[in-house]
Amino acid sequence: MVRTLSAPVDGKAAPREPRAGGWRSPPEPREGNRRSENLSPSGPPPQRALGAERWLARQLLHGLGDPPVRIVLACGEEVAVSEAAPIVRVVLHDRATLWKLAARPRLEFGEAYGEGRLEVEGNLLDLLVAVYRAAAAVRKPAGPLAAPAARIGHWLQSNTLAGSKRNIHLHYDIGNEFYELWLDKELVYTCAYFPSPSAGLEEAQQAKMEHVCRKLWLRPGETVVEAGCGWGALALYMARHFGVTVKAYNISHEQVVYARRRAESEGLAGRVEFLEDDYRNIRGEFDVFVSVGMLEHVGPNHYSELGRTIHRVLRPAGRGLIHSIGQNGSGTLINPWIRRRIFPGAYPPGLREITAFLEPWRFSVLDVENLRLHYAETLRHWLARFDAAEDRVRRMFDPTFVRMWRLYLTGSAAAFLAGELQLFQVVFARPQVNEIPWTRAGVYENS
Amino acid sequence: MVRTLSAPVDGKAAPREPRAGGWRSPPEPREGNRRSENLSPSGPPPQRALGAERWLARQLLHGLGDPPVRIVLACGEEVAVSEAAPIVRVVLHDRATLWKLAARPRLEFGEAYGEGRLEVEGNLLDLLVAVYRAAAAVRKPAGPLAAPAARIGHWLQSNTLAGSKRNIHLHYDIGNEFYELWLDKELVYTCAYFPSPSAGLEEAQQAKMEHVCRKLWLRPGETVVEAGCGWGALALYMARHFGVTVKAYNISHEQVVYARRRAESEGLAGRVEFLEDDYRNIRGEFDVFVSVGMLEHVGPNHYSELGRTIHRVLRPAGRGLIHSIGQNGSGTLINPWIRRRIFPGAYPPGLREITAFLEPWRFSVLDVENLRLHYAETLRHWLARFDAAEDRVRRMFDPTFVRMWRLYLTGSAAAFLAGELQLFQVVFARPQVNEIPWTRAGVYENS
Repeated sequence: MVRTLSAPVDGKAAPREPRAGGWRSPPEPREGNRRSENLSPSGPPPQRALGAERWLARQLLHGLGDPPVRIVLACGEEVAVSEAAPIVRVVLHDRATLWKLAARPRLEFGEAYGEGRLEVEGNLLDLLVAVYRAAAAVRKPAGPLAAPAARIGHWLQSNTLAGSKRNIHLHYDIGNEFYELWLDKELVYTCAYFPSPSAGLEEAQQAKMEHVCRKLWLRPGETVVEAGCGWGALALYMARHFGVTVKAYNISHEQVVYARRRAESEGLAGRVEFLEDDYRNIRGEFDVFVSVGMLEHVGPNHYSELGRTIHRVLRPAGRGLIHSIGQNGSGTLINPWIRRRIFPGAYPPGLREITAFLEPWRFSVLDVENLRLHYAETLRHWLARFDAAEDRVRRMFDPTFVRMWRLYLTGSAAAFLAGELQLFQVVFARPQVNEIPWTRAGVYENS
Repeated sequence: MVRTLSAPVDGKAAPREPRAGGWRSPPEPREGNRRSENLSPSGPPPQRALGAERWLARQLLHGLGDPPVRIVLACGEEVAVSEAAPIVRVVLHDRATLWKLAARPRLEFGEAYGEGRLEVEGNLLDLLVAVYRAAAAVRKPAGPLAAPAARIGHWLQSNTLAGSKRNIHLHYDIGNEFYELWLDKELVYTCAYFPSPSAGLEEAQQAKMEHVCRKLWLRPGETVVEAGCGWGALALYMARHFGVTVKAYNISHEQVVYARRRAESEGLAGRVEFLEDDYRNIRGEFDVFVSVGMLEHVGPNHYSELGRTIHRVLRPAGRGLIHSIGQNGSGTLINPWIRRRIFPGAYPPGLREITAFLEPWRFSVLDVENLRLHYAETLRHWLARFDAAEDRVRRMFDPTFVRMWRLYLTGSAAAFLAGELQLFQVVFARPQVNEIPWTRAGVYENS
């Protein structure tokens, strides 16, 4: 089945909070979503912009590859550079935001959006996909300073034992009740696998766990170690459906507490042990290594430690699976706003970087699958649920948090749709293991 | 389906040719194959070996990780170091061969086997698998001179335009009639795909072509460029079964002449054009790039040229597939005897090296499959056919040629069985292509 995913998510322009200190009194919050077809001018009649501002806005759009976007300056004047009809209007509520955007667009867009200094009239996802696509078309090869800059970036948020603990705590320990509002019922916070595009999220997360287990051809009685187990859904699934015993590691305290409670209540505590510890501290020997959604948090300066750990804990006939967000190149840092506000220390590896830390131990890569469109679909479901729970999220946190998380979820969907992010599932085995599935057909047989 | 492949091929010890200049008159040629169960001493009563020879033979075996092998020295004395029962006996017919073997075992084994100075009593494949496995267990990390030595190796047999022409001519232009003796009826000289281990070679080569076409989701009317097309089977298959038009490049004159004749006789000359030219000279723009069994002949110092070529000829919505022998690490040269006698200029890339030449152009890797056991199975079929045609091959060439090719085919099977060689199929696309199959299930649907 071939399917084109354009931009199916209806992003919702969040109401802007009144904010002191702007150069111009902010307009009334505008509820809802305006599509490109009704982008008629509104509000007070435009004042004349400074020439420098107009020039700056045009430069900003040129730098982004001339996306079909109209910038509404603080004075009300609109600026566009693309010949194409604008699909959204980006409204700047003060002059400073334009200058900040021009200086560091990738960081400042998120900052301004979160604080309500910038609003999007039209579909947020459409905007972000259009900007990713346009920017890719004018992307220049990395200059000589890109690699050292990236190294500094990795070092600043380095995932040492203590650094990882801090970085993970900031995202995953903000409250299980929050995640229960918009994840599936088992709290699987990684890319789902949709057997068909019409599958629902609950079904797709179950299908993902089945997909992973089949790719690993788990057999009853085997031992599995899981590095980075989230709220424990996969570990429990493997034990329940494939008869294996699992040791599952995680450094998020909230998640481990939750997972242990689930194992107890489901009578699986004897076969699934949840340990609040770092992947580097895994002890024992196992038939299978599995890690779903942890590599993004390891960071390239710690990949060799991960490779060494896998080698140390895997039996001579062992095999493994790594599931991770990735990128087509190698070395590009994730969006700086995401690194600052959402996922400190996160980095999506290129496939070259993944193979590079498996090579020293001569692991044999058996299978790689790229599921990026499935992550876009997963995010579409999360966003819809998040939007439906918006009032409760606002009561748990505050309006800025709502806007930030909507931008993070929408921006991630856009990055997967535009091909800026990938989702790799990599299956590997010790080099001399010949007891491997003869073909992959078994993965696709109906159970 | 899970299947263990041990060593199913019956290697046949080739008759040794009488040879002048040995230190000891050679025994009569021994026909046929002796299995390990009847490795009883034979021939004249053993003489006493020099202490240095005994020591050298033991060192040789130690260096190979103490495989369960017995060396029979020229004087008749037998040397073994493994505690395990020997599975084969390696008989050396002169003293010089031992010294040469000790100095350069990977090269000299093939040289001595080809010239009949060395014979294997027992199963040749079992021997080679055992040696590969034992040697892997004692393999040391590459030293600081490994990389420069490999670079020199690549340079000596560099696949420049002229070097490629020479290297390819030496292997592929030795006569289509020879290959017709032991390949399938369409002369597909690359790894087959066995839907089940019981499939025959003819079926498996057809299945491989179908597998490649499905992975590329070819659509009628599309344009395909094939780099390194052999005798043309895949190009014709794509045009016949998927309605595409194909330009297929190859620098083997014999193969191109054959392929053109086939296209004419099958009425496909209007849709499949065979060009006797190098991949670097591909002109035009195409929806699909495909290359099956050529990357092994490109050489790592020319990978960036290949990447640039693919980028140059692929349309904005294009995708591609590369099928190549590979290795788990990167940088290890292929067996030196193979490089000298069988495949000058050949090098099996690590997956890291493949991703590295796709990355600069931001190609998105969608799928990697490792089919190494399928190549072992393919070689098992080729060997059986080759053995059946032995008399005709000997009349076409000479007995040394027969032994060399049997060793090459058997050694390749051993390398795939022991996990020393891999077979990668890599599917990739331009980064922004969203018209990709939703899952891989369609590849496995019955047609």
